[in-house]
Amino acid sequence: MAYNLLKGKRGIIFGALNELSIAWKVAERAVEEGAEILLTNTPVSIRLGTINQLAEQTGALVVPADATSVEDLQNLVDTALEHFGGKIDFVLHAVGMSPNVRKNIPYEDTNYQNMLKTIDISALSFHKLLQTLYQKDAMAEYGSVVSLSYIAAQRTVIGYNDMADAKALLESITRSFGAIYGKKCGVRVNTVSQSPTMTTAGQGIAGLGQWFEMADEISPLGNATADDCADYVVTLFSDLTRKVTMQNLYHDGGFSNMAICPSVIEAYGKGKISE
Amino acid sequence: MAYNLLKGKRGIIFGALNELSIAWKVAERAVEEGAEILLTNTPVSIRLGTINQLAEQTGALVVPADATSVEDLQNLVDTALEHFGGKIDFVLHAVGMSPNVRKNIPYEDTNYQNMLKTIDISALSFHKLLQTLYQKDAMAEYGSVVSLSYIAAQRTVIGYNDMADAKALLESITRSFGAIYGKKCGVRVNTVSQSPTMTTAGQGIAGLGQWFEMADEISPLGNATADDCADYVVTLFSDLTRKVTMQNLYHDGGFSNMAICPSVIEAYGKGKISE
Amino acid sequence: MAYNLLKGKRGIIFGALNELSIAWKVAERAVEEGAEILLTNTPVSIRLGTINQLAEQTGALVVPADATSVEDLQNLVDTALEHFGGKIDFVLHAVGMSPNVRKNIPYEDTNYQNMLKTIDISALSFHKLLQTLYQKDAMAEYGSVVSLSYIAAQRTVIGYNDMADAKALLESITRSFGAIYGKKCGVRVNTVSQSPTMTTAGQGIAGLGQWFEMADEISPLGNATADDCADYVVTLFSDLTRKVTMQNLYHDGGFSNMAICPSVIEAYGKGKISE
Amino acid sequence: MAYNLLKGKRGIIFGALNELSIAWKVAERAVEEGAEILLTNTPVSIRLGTINQLAEQTGALVVPADATSVEDLQNLVDTALEHFGGKIDFVLHAVGMSPNVRKNIPYEDTNYQNMLKTIDISALSFHKLLQTLYQKDAMAEYGSVVSLSYIAAQRTVIGYNDMADAKALLESITRSFGAIYGKKCGVRVNTVSQSPTMTTAGQGIAGLGQWFEMADEISPLGNATADDCADYVVTLFSDLTRKVTMQNLYHDGGFSNMAICPSVIEAYGKGKISE
Repeated sequence: MAYNLLKGKRGIIFGALNELSIAWKVAERAVEEGAEILLTNTPVSIRLGTINQLAEQTGALVVPADATSVEDLQNLVDTALEHFGGKIDFVLHAVGMSPNVRKNIPYEDTNYQNMLKTIDISALSFHKLLQTLYQKDAMAEYGSVVSLSYIAAQRTVIGYNDMADAKALLESITRSFGAIYGKKCGVRVNTVSQSPTMTTAGQGIAGLGQWFEMADEISPLGNATADDCADYVVTLFSDLTRKVTMQNLYHDGGFSNMAICPSVIEAYGKGKISE
Repeated sequence: MAYNLLKGKRGIIFGALNELSIAWKVAERAVEEGAEILLTNTPVSIRLGTINQLAEQTGALVVPADATSVEDLQNLVDTALEHFGGKIDFVLHAVGMSPNVRKNIPYEDTNYQNMLKTIDISALSFHKLLQTLYQKDAMAEYGSVVSLSYIAAQRTVIGYNDMADAKALLESITRSFGAIYGKKCGVRVNTVSQSPTMTTAGQGIAGLGQWFEMADEISPLGNATADDCADYVVTLFSDLTRKVTMQNLYHDGGFSNMAICPSVIEAYGKGKISE
Repeated sequence: MAYNLLKGKRGIIFGALNELSIAWKVAERAVEEGAEILLTNTPVSIRLGTINQLAEQTGALVVPADATSVEDLQNLVDTALEHFGGKIDFVLHAVGMSPNVRKNIPYEDTNYQNMLKTIDISALSFHKLLQTLYQKDAMAEYGSVVSLSYIAAQRTVIGYNDMADAKALLESITRSFGAIYGKKCGVRVNTVSQSPTMTTAGQGIAGLGQWFEMADEISPLGNATADDCADYVVTLFSDLTRKVTMQNLYHDGGFSNMAICPSVIEAYGKGKISE
Repeated sequence: MAYNLLKGKRGIIFGALNELSIAWKVAERAVEEGAEILLTNTPVSIRLGTINQLAEQTGALVVPADATSVEDLQNLVDTALEHFGGKIDFVLHAVGMSPNVRKNIPYEDTNYQNMLKTIDISALSFHKLLQTLYQKDAMAEYGSVVSLSYIAAQRTVIGYNDMADAKALLESITRSFGAIYGKKCGVRVNTVSQSPTMTTAGQGIAGLGQWFEMADEISPLGNATADDCADYVVTLFSDLTRKVTMQNLYHDGGFSNMAICPSVIEAYGKGKISE
């Protein structure tokens, strides 16, 4: 169901790789809600994924950009301003990657070149994006910028590796820049802390499958899906949430405020006996 | 602007005293968004306030109820189910009062009969409401229950007195009951932690005026108004936030994640010199 | 090993029922560290437990008091001031009980008379204690008051029932009163959020056994024991922590900041298969 | 007063520049409490500061090391193990610097080379230290590693710039590595979130003076000093806090859990009038 929540709004969506991507779902929902969008991703992700299919479906322009390159971001924002013929109302930053995770390098034996890359791609890219938008005065008043985070920023998920640290940094940048951007021209900056999601990136994390199930059982409403997330992000882009900023918003079926439920304790107990 | 976000939905709104009330604004916005509503308040608040005007304007039934009385709540929910001819989609609980605040009794010289009343009215009433809804299976699947909280639940605002404790308890009940209600039938339970607001209740807190201004200056987006709050609550009642539960959601222009900004430090410094 | 950390200090210890009690261990450790102590508990707990043995062992006076009775607390504090011949340096409040838990009444079918009792015994008693101390000016400058809490105050442990809400309220009272007491005369007020502990009270919570094991496995350092807790509380009573106040301090082997570890996921997975 | 809390323990102290340094005070207190210590700092800080005076006073070896250099850290740890003739019991990491702060480059016009340096010096250096200790199995069982943080990691202090983000990252590394180190051999990793402190580094932050006063007035116990901090850190190095890990511990006179107090509101109000 659509409500015209984003009628007349223009936005940039980072990070749609394929149909499993949260960004993909957000793009679809934003357009359903009346928005005009521009899609962006790295050249290699554009090649490997199916973003052009999404572009066709949503009537979107695709502009390749490496989110760690200020130059690329400047070009992207300039192109968007020109393409839209006006300022930008919303941006989704769904960007993250850890070479350490990809190469299965344990956190306690980290490679610092990799770790800096994780940080640059998954966190500093958000600062670079915000700074580019800010310096070009590219966001409309009451504009909304959203990035995606994960509970590991607060509580350790062994195996999530340096992505946990990158997400903590991302959330801090959200606060730090949000304080400045809000004061200057009312632009909101928030993160959505999403349930583990079976995206292509999510599937790359070893042992996610079982954890996905366990989190689903602990969460009173079950894990939030990518579709659910798209619905929620749309509300954050809309004019109805104009006074929400600098927040990390849990969209996780209640997981973040759960310690434990009896059925998980029971399964754990059975599993221990069977060991 | 309206979006039909609540089209076909039915809800109960507690706590609309007069045009300044957050509940009043929520009632108006819910109806604008296509909902059918039922209003409730204590008999004395109905007499002292202007809820009947709101009822007329929104085509709502008014059912008097003392939110601390399980009997009244049972009658209210029965009446709502019958009046709506079906289950309830959303509820706003905007109920709070402290006899200690009213009578200017300091926190360190509290009257425990009063404190228990503060707790019963401002926090236990939410449990009573949830338990009544739960036991009567009165909420529609994916229904949404929202109560109003304040940052004093986390950080001390000297003068807010035992209302701070009541709000902390309210937020705990939100988590505790939300865990159960979500698991059983997908009902969401959340609180919105709102900026200081110039409602009739807010005006009753000594020294709120200056604090209101200071909070407004610290908050990057300024204080959220009652109108802003109504917009936000509408998103929480909608189907777009179905996986958000057990949360305390800050709707405060960013105040909650601010420590300080230079202009406030400066004013403070000038004020100290002038002393 | 002892350090004379509390040499010359005088304190009151609430809640030592028997050798399993955290309060019992704190009493022993405080005396080992050079303190003089006074023990208190309800008349019925004194009868059912073995506090007199502890009193003998530690050279302590036992003063019966119901922590929900302001009159009893006033008598207790007067007696302590006289007995010590001076002000009180530290107090441990280890008081909590839920009739709903005892009677296995589920949270969603709560009895409100019971819930008010849970709140009065487990949370308001702390306010009553603080107010009594404050009004009698009974605490020495830089005195330290500690109560015991549990992670359920932040994250739902299904089965912990209304004790979760009582602990959230207890932590709020800690902040609210701590703000006032600190400003007036430097008295610290904090809670220690302890691992699940196999005390007599802990054993009364259904299903704690398996949860205890699971928490132990999730916590990188394992669950903190009652003995560990006594060590920690001693540091909070000492002069070395004079600027720590209004805090909820996790003493839990790291549990509070863990989401999950692989071995627990694995056991869970095995348990699910075996179902 | 000394208690022999660290008798027989050996530790490394990073970051003592001069007598104002928190690390300086910690070094002094650790030795008073019976510890043997080794001091380290960058060659330039050793030249500019007065660490040799501290070394003389405490009988400590000084080993120059750049905390961002894994090679230097490896050499440092090897030297310490040899010097002590055994494993290390405690480490204080008091390391932080932001070229952006030093050069007054605003956060919204940041230089990313600088920002990466801030992150490398102030946060990654902690990971490098922990990884070096871990891989060399250099910490004694139940060893304790502490770093220093600041409330800006949670709530924005405009002007603290990218140090806020670095501290958020530092706290995340504390959790991530703490989870692993605790599980492996019981080593604790924590941060102390200290009041604004008039160290040489602190004095470098523009506008700190007034903010220092305001924080002092908001904090019920006043700002914690460097001396207070040393007392507190000593408890974290001791055997009395063996089950505390992965925590960010506020040592701030209660500031972290305060929103506001009347005297600050009043000064603010006067200051606004006088504008």
